[in-house]
Amino acid sequence: MKQQVTIGIDIGGTNTKIGVVSSDGKILAHSRITTTDYPKIAAFVAALDSEINGLLEKSGEVELAAIGIGAPNGNYHKGTIEHAPNLAWKGIVPLGDMLGKCFPVPVVLTNDANAAALGEMIYGGAKGMKNFIILTLGTGLGSGIVINGELVYGKTGFAGEMGHLTMEPFGRECGCGREGCLETYVSATGIVKTVFELFAERRDPSPLRKIPFDNLTSKMIAEAAEKGDQIALAAFEQTAEMLGLAINNAAAFCSPEAIFLFGGLAQAGDLLLDPLNQFVNENIFGHYRKSFRILLSKLNEADAAILGASALAVKAIKI
Amino acid sequence: MKQQVTIGIDIGGTNTKIGVVSSDGKILAHSRITTTDYPKIAAFVAALDSEINGLLEKSGEVELAAIGIGAPNGNYHKGTIEHAPNLAWKGIVPLGDMLGKCFPVPVVLTNDANAAALGEMIYGGAKGMKNFIILTLGTGLGSGIVINGELVYGKTGFAGEMGHLTMEPFGRECGCGREGCLETYVSATGIVKTVFELFAERRDPSPLRKIPFDNLTSKMIAEAAEKGDQIALAAFEQTAEMLGLAINNAAAFCSPEAIFLFGGLAQAGDLLLDPLNQFVNENIFGHYRKSFRILLSKLNEADAAILGASALAVKAIKI
Repeated sequence: MKQQVTIGIDIGGTNTKIGVVSSDGKILAHSRITTTDYPKIAAFVAALDSEINGLLEKSGEVELAAIGIGAPNGNYHKGTIEHAPNLAWKGIVPLGDMLGKCFPVPVVLTNDANAAALGEMIYGGAKGMKNFIILTLGTGLGSGIVINGELVYGKTGFAGEMGHLTMEPFGRECGCGREGCLETYVSATGIVKTVFELFAERRDPSPLRKIPFDNLTSKMIAEAAEKGDQIALAAFEQTAEMLGLAINNAAAFCSPEAIFLFGGLAQAGDLLLDPLNQFVNENIFGHYRKSFRILLSKLNEADAAILGASALAVKAIKI
Repeated sequence: MKQQVTIGIDIGGTNTKIGVVSSDGKILAHSRITTTDYPKIAAFVAALDSEINGLLEKSGEVELAAIGIGAPNGNYHKGTIEHAPNLAWKGIVPLGDMLGKCFPVPVVLTNDANAAALGEMIYGGAKGMKNFIILTLGTGLGSGIVINGELVYGKTGFAGEMGHLTMEPFGRECGCGREGCLETYVSATGIVKTVFELFAERRDPSPLRKIPFDNLTSKMIAEAAEKGDQIALAAFEQTAEMLGLAINNAAAFCSPEAIFLFGGLAQAGDLLLDPLNQFVNENIFGHYRKSFRILLSKLNEADAAILGASALAVKAIKI
């Protein structure tokens, strides 16, 4: 009997990753294509078609059960990518339908953070959990929210955009055209901004002061903090406080059993987690105190995008 | 054949309302007892038992199917009232189990705002909706959140406490021991505080300046606003902006199809709704613009508490 597999596709602004995933979460074969090589969506779909067929052949005796796609501005309800600022395809792109014509299996699509939540639930640290949130701390801040065992898509299909919670009316300018969004403070780029604010406010010497804004990365800040740099440590503390405020407010919505952190900034580990746990415990509403844990994602960065998209496919055929 | 009915019980700090409700949402018989007359929970349960039996007799040929209870700090998962500050019964009270021993039917318990959400879904304006939020704007601010057709209870059973979203770190003192909670700004008492802040900040004359803090009510503020009082109008505007910020952030969580407003402050109608809709439309994240409506509850104030608790019972036997 052939082994049932799913395909996970993660579409990024630069690269698109494709993988064949077994039911126990092993990536049997994978590859990538350059998203920007295909300014026309039809050519992109043709490339995916050929790539998927090649990967399935490489994977041995397998039978394709479903395809899951993680894509920026992915609308789960419609299988469309809608007005994604970092992709060449403008307007509303019916990618789910187009790929469904190449493969006679369910094709399901959502954004990468929602896919990450399902990846965590099916292959990672959230196995068996019914209520949890994953926050992806990269260039921006994405979120996937699971309540009563189901991913929250909402009326529009775009629920779970915690990166665009307004934390500071009249705060930092956000790429979404508004001000004070969580991701302008809590993300790999947000912590860089915080460091530059701290340069202005404080007098502590720091080797980071020699690095131009455009060159400073969250990794450099983490390395400086490890060495005791006061500015870098304060930046992690401020980042943790803003994130903690958002997490405490999230608890008042849905009282989760865990919050998972994923992505570049999460790799700072205890530099972020220690002040975060302290802030959360000191400031949370009584009913929720010690009711959830803040954990690092159990999926490794390299596989997570493909596994998340695959989990979306798994979820689609299990229901 | 006997008509199936549910009992709805709403426990308040002062009064407890009890009603027999038909499957089409008619209150067939109702009464109330004085909560404070029963400092011991056993005596309270005995009084409920006798009251319910009396009401069932009055209701004609009926068969009791389930009992729903709305109570402050009600834990749905456990059927308990936990550390409710406004009730005489201290600690954790297993009211669901106690009343279940008197009546051999399901007894279900949650807080009053969650009950209001189910009331709206089963008997009111949210019929057929899968994703919505109800905000009860009384002395405090309660909320009930429905996602994918289910009320959100979360890990602790206490999800949906939007009154305790932190809106202003270091803001107004809240009864919960923290600062800057939404309900200290957006509630019948919150708007009174805002009026007194405005007295200090502005020079506009207002007849409200003659009323002591302890005597001013949200109703008086609404009446003054109707007459064009600038302080009262500004207080509604500020209240609407804080509420709008919370609603926009709620949309980023769960992308609802409607937000229902209920309670004393909601009765101000367009005084609140006009600036609220304006703020929400001008400030919401693009994906959610015009994706939901802000509506007044369709349940009338007098019946809502009993119908909400009854809806909880209906929901319990339908699943």
